[in-house]
Amino acid sequence: MKIYLAGPDVFLPDAIEIGRRKTAICARYGVTGLYPLDNAIDLAAADASLAIFKGNEAMMDAADAIIANLTPFRGPSADAGTIYELGYMAGRGKLCFAYSNDPAIYAERVARSFAVSKAAGGHLVDDDGLTVEDFGLPDNLMMIHTLDLHGARLVTPRERPQDIWHDLTSFEACVALAADADRATGKSD
Amino acid sequence: MKIYLAGPDVFLPDAIEIGRRKTAICARYGVTGLYPLDNAIDLAAADASLAIFKGNEAMMDAADAIIANLTPFRGPSADAGTIYELGYMAGRGKLCFAYSNDPAIYAERVARSFAVSKAAGGHLVDDDGLTVEDFGLPDNLMMIHTLDLHGARLVTPRERPQDIWHDLTSFEACVALAADADRATGKSD
Repeated sequence: MKIYLAGPDVFLPDAIEIGRRKTAICARYGVTGLYPLDNAIDLAAADASLAIFKGNEAMMDAADAIIANLTPFRGPSADAGTIYELGYMAGRGKLCFAYSNDPAIYAERVARSFAVSKAAGGHLVDDDGLTVEDFGLPDNLMMIHTLDLHGARLVTPRERPQDIWHDLTSFEACVALAADADRATGKSD
Repeated sequence: MKIYLAGPDVFLPDAIEIGRRKTAICARYGVTGLYPLDNAIDLAAADASLAIFKGNEAMMDAADAIIANLTPFRGPSADAGTIYELGYMAGRGKLCFAYSNDPAIYAERVARSFAVSKAAGGHLVDDDGLTVEDFGLPDNLMMIHTLDLHGARLVTPRERPQDIWHDLTSFEACVALAADADRATGKSD
């Protein structure tokens, strides 16, 4: 089983090292991790961003599953590129797994950064008057339920780890789920 | 042609009215707008979020194209649910169109909310030391280039409109692009 390893990990200063650690964990479980090494592309080239897109899309097309790092990124939700990739893989009918190193629910997280209040109808709204999703889920319902229906429930730690960008405990739990699914379907590399 | 109308519009106080305006614009161009009326679901039911997910997924599967509202939402990037849906439709091989009512580029927008600086390597990083994408694009490259390759370039206004949540000028430009594509392929409802 080939698994596309999506996440804002590629933006970390030690992005390459994190990729090595993730693919090594995959290998231990008998599956192959495909890590989008954006850094392998000449970032000074005029078409660098398009080259990264094409590389990532080809890697996703070659994979049987995705493990997405949905840890909140620059706001209350996950990284935009990672969310896009989760949607793309769901659309392609691939198995979808994900984790978030922040176990808080979405409505709580919005309230950390915005002035959330109750509107006349009793539902939560932000400072702009836009409804805040309040279903007790850790992020937007489209991402959470696609995991429930097309893979496995979002994996979160009981408590936020010290280093949310380098703790791979929940990532490893996703790899175990994927390896189980792989054995169940009898697929192999 | 049936077009799924994705966006955080469903979170607006006048979400239903915006949906009416959007589907009316579609009708004027001879295409059918499908608007995810989350509000039609009993939000008090225990499985409300799952019912919304299933309704939206079925609506996307029934559509030939998507027009996504990628106006930044609670941070420098677009709404998570909308990004997921754009990815899903791209994965299904549907035509992808989108607009954003904020024409600023992503790196500028991050700098509005975070302390952005230059790292030793010369690239931009945020306060956590994570790289800030700096390709002169309006949002994450995965979303921007999927539009370039699987539909049409992101539509943005020359200047941010007064009311970013209700101005439908760029939405209408997307509908025109979709209707053109519809005529080119000879598809119809």
